Amino acid sequence: MMPLTRRYSSSAILFSCIFLIVSVYWKPSMASSAVLKASAALKARVRRPSMLNKLAHPEDLIPHFPNGAYIGWSGFTGVGYPKKIPTMLADHVEKNSLQGQLKYSLFVGASSGAETENRWAELNMIERRSPHQVGKQIAKGINNGNIKFFDKHLSMFPVDLVYGFYTKDRPNKKLDVVIVEATAITEDGGIIPGASVGASPELIQMADKVIIEVNTATPSFEGLHDITMTQLPPHRKPYLIMAPEDRIGTTSIPVDPEKVVAIIESDYQDQTQPNSPADATSKAIASHLIEFLEHEVKHDRLPKNLLPIQSGIGNIANAVIGGLAESKFEHLKVWTEVLQDTFLDLFDSGRLDFATATSIRFSPEGFKRFYDGWEQYHNKLLLRSQQVSNNPEIIRRLGVIGMNTPVEVDIYAHANSTCVMGSRMLNGLGGSADFLRSSKYSIMHTPSTRPSKTDPHGLSCIVPMCTHVDQTEHDLDVIVTEQGLADVRGLSPKERAKVIIEKCSHPEYKPILEDYFAKAEFECMRRGWGHEPHLLWNAFDMHKALDQEGSMKKIKTWG
Amino acid sequence: MMPLTRRYSSSAILFSCIFLIVSVYWKPSMASSAVLKASAALKARVRRPSMLNKLAHPEDLIPHFPNGAYIGWSGFTGVGYPKKIPTMLADHVEKNSLQGQLKYSLFVGASSGAETENRWAELNMIERRSPHQVGKQIAKGINNGNIKFFDKHLSMFPVDLVYGFYTKDRPNKKLDVVIVEATAITEDGGIIPGASVGASPELIQMADKVIIEVNTATPSFEGLHDITMTQLPPHRKPYLIMAPEDRIGTTSIPVDPEKVVAIIESDYQDQTQPNSPADATSKAIASHLIEFLEHEVKHDRLPKNLLPIQSGIGNIANAVIGGLAESKFEHLKVWTEVLQDTFLDLFDSGRLDFATATSIRFSPEGFKRFYDGWEQYHNKLLLRSQQVSNNPEIIRRLGVIGMNTPVEVDIYAHANSTCVMGSRMLNGLGGSADFLRSSKYSIMHTPSTRPSKTDPHGLSCIVPMCTHVDQTEHDLDVIVTEQGLADVRGLSPKERAKVIIEKCSHPEYKPILEDYFAKAEFECMRRGWGHEPHLLWNAFDMHKALDQEGSMKKIKTWG
Repeated sequence: MMPLTRRYSSSAILFSCIFLIVSVYWKPSMASSAVLKASAALKARVRRPSMLNKLAHPEDLIPHFPNGAYIGWSGFTGVGYPKKIPTMLADHVEKNSLQGQLKYSLFVGASSGAETENRWAELNMIERRSPHQVGKQIAKGINNGNIKFFDKHLSMFPVDLVYGFYTKDRPNKKLDVVIVEATAITEDGGIIPGASVGASPELIQMADKVIIEVNTATPSFEGLHDITMTQLPPHRKPYLIMAPEDRIGTTSIPVDPEKVVAIIESDYQDQTQPNSPADATSKAIASHLIEFLEHEVKHDRLPKNLLPIQSGIGNIANAVIGGLAESKFEHLKVWTEVLQDTFLDLFDSGRLDFATATSIRFSPEGFKRFYDGWEQYHNKLLLRSQQVSNNPEIIRRLGVIGMNTPVEVDIYAHANSTCVMGSRMLNGLGGSADFLRSSKYSIMHTPSTRPSKTDPHGLSCIVPMCTHVDQTEHDLDVIVTEQGLADVRGLSPKERAKVIIEKCSHPEYKPILEDYFAKAEFECMRRGWGHEPHLLWNAFDMHKALDQEGSMKKIKTWG
Repeated sequence: MMPLTRRYSSSAILFSCIFLIVSVYWKPSMASSAVLKASAALKARVRRPSMLNKLAHPEDLIPHFPNGAYIGWSGFTGVGYPKKIPTMLADHVEKNSLQGQLKYSLFVGASSGAETENRWAELNMIERRSPHQVGKQIAKGINNGNIKFFDKHLSMFPVDLVYGFYTKDRPNKKLDVVIVEATAITEDGGIIPGASVGASPELIQMADKVIIEVNTATPSFEGLHDITMTQLPPHRKPYLIMAPEDRIGTTSIPVDPEKVVAIIESDYQDQTQPNSPADATSKAIASHLIEFLEHEVKHDRLPKNLLPIQSGIGNIANAVIGGLAESKFEHLKVWTEVLQDTFLDLFDSGRLDFATATSIRFSPEGFKRFYDGWEQYHNKLLLRSQQVSNNPEIIRRLGVIGMNTPVEVDIYAHANSTCVMGSRMLNGLGGSADFLRSSKYSIMHTPSTRPSKTDPHGLSCIVPMCTHVDQTEHDLDVIVTEQGLADVRGLSPKERAKVIIEKCSHPEYKPILEDYFAKAEFECMRRGWGHEPHLLWNAFDMHKALDQEGSMKKIKTWG
């Protein structure tokens, strides 16, 4: 997309006209801004003086948020999200007992800060939400029917948004207001994001009005981003990225200045949590995985420095990246969705040459370490939009090694990434299917069991049939638990079942799963249905035993 | 990939060395070729004289096919497959009662001719098969456990093959013999395929030995192909295709001449079947779809000439393409996997500017029409490898309108494309998920019901839960039956269920599905599991009624 701002800045007359139009159009906060004085910190961040004229009190912006509005926020995995306006609106609802009377459709690249969207959910301010979320209250609202939620591939959500698919029933075909956090604003009005890019470029493209929260509590992230906008077909071009370090865009997000109705100073940092530490189970998984990667290198299916690595959030991901830091691999590169603290260790080990993602979700200590070591890290990092970081085009071209944790995996290598018992939403699909479909190596790692309320191994993560399928049997190459690693490449379903049960299932569940498979095979072969044998009326009996008797082990018999 | 043949042809000395090596290595059929004289027809097709020295009797090639060999064939959707060697081997097995004693792992881009692979299946000659097949005997072998079959995304199968994933346990890490049908051989030894490209480039890349069947019964297809080979990461480049007519490759498949152990003349055409005609149901589906496309154009979400269309095989696809030929749309373009007869009608209507695919699967009459109208059609057509025709990178960039027919769709918009009753394999995944994941519009079209043995509407194609999931709820935008069209873009699962049941289900099944949804919603909401409500222990009760009482309608009550 052509940066509109540049056109205008080249013509003083045109710019004055626009300024006039904006002034007329936007009287209320112009009035407020008259009495507002920008702090020195803010002035240092906003290099386009006219933007400072739009400085507003959060409270004056309430009229931009009528009930039913379609709203976009910047942010991804709980970093780079707007803080002041969402908090102000929540205070407004709480103070005036407006729960359920101010409800919004909320679009954010992925999860935002718990103190903002989770509080909105608690105050019944969310009518609709997409495509991903994290937070106890928002999950509750989704599962009790208060919040209409749909999860979409994170690479596709911004594209479908720009297609107009999510605003097709709106009179203006747009998002009414988009609130974006910036760490600086450039001379031409471009937005320098913070620790995430996420869907901000597309949210801004689709915005009727834009409000910018300039965060002066974090350093400016200028130079760390590679920004591209989303073109519509038939005019879309290839992403000319051949390696994780390739730059194809600009360092700021262009914004039509006419759309910007206000700027706000934001004064506190992303509220992240500490990382989940690796434990014995996740270390065992990591060890199987690193052994597998070494095996692939030995057989010339991987270069010595591997191929770009994708790794998620959580203790297994931490253990894997931690394991790589202690491995013999050198000159590693990372092409992923989100970076967590262990990537700093991997940088510090000297084994990681470059990493790119759409967000940096460090713990508070991690961020301190990152800011302190800025000189050492900043030229080895690039943040892109989620449309690019998760793009199948690039993931496939680079031959990424994709790793993810599911809710459950079945014996034929389908995986459930989203819905417990097929019905209860956890966080959403995220980028799991973006990566697992297109990676060279599609790897699912999970503990073989999880505890139920009454049994430390009440829940087997290897099941006969997934209760919800997000990744199909056509997508996964490797399943790994602390028990072992199943390499299912090129195997038929029945061969897959044998190796997954044998290598991955917990000893207490192995005989139960073997029994299922044997009975299903016998029954289906008899009927000439034996490609992928199932006992269809009993496929969820382990789940039933968990639900009714507290543990999957309590299953009596199959069928 | 660098065409190896060119290197050699530029150096007479080097070529002589290779010729010597090949001669020494390949004594048996060199001996045979001495007595073989090429027909005039064959000479006219083979422009590299040294290739004619490799002319062999099919029977002399039996030693290249020991039991357990890994074999590749050209071919896709029953066109462009080798005919003489497979038939000769089948005759050999039949004549010498070698059933089950000569078994092969067989890799073909998609289905080949029924008279070849179906006969191999009948003679128990297939140990393993991937990634797609069509034929009664081969389906039988897969479902009775005789044949180990795995279905893989057609765009990915050739890539995983080149990664070495399917030959990792072979001593030579290669396919032992690959048999390719050509309609001509160029001066530099390049293979001009026939009516399909499929996975031939990658099969040849991975071949230890290559046998070429030159088909002199069909015209040469020279100039109709755009051939690219598959590079390995980290050296892979973008596909610089911005429109269906863009050429990025060569007109023939380069082959290392050292690999070619024999050529054979093939003397009969592809054995295709007549196309399934459109009926009232498929016409109603097509009419809903065209109305939808007109609606999207009206609301500026599609250009007036639409975006490139993908359409499959079968009577619904025929009706859709037939409907477009009678529509007001002009300057259409097609980016698809396979072209069938109705595309000729679309060309003849003047509405279609260009079409590209990996195969042309016309009926015998369609092929006659195509050959007769060669001058009119040949510069509006391009055949590419399935790695390119089905590539998510390009499908997504072009914003393809993807359409496909499933086994069943569920109320939350998952679809089953492969396994009846979750267990019995039909044909395989094909390119359905390649297109439905990455298209701008992902459309599933199906009749609302199909007949069972005892009930003309015994089987509802809209079910509570798919018994096998190949397309996830995160992938589909539109479901359409003869009853109506459900536009599920941006809807939460519960909203989707309501609109799918309302618009798409057959009147006899509507109350049954409404009842399921109401009970599931009540039960799951009560438990705080209400995102995507299911009655997990009863989700397949309609299938059970079909199995045990002959019709899904016979279901008594839910749970």
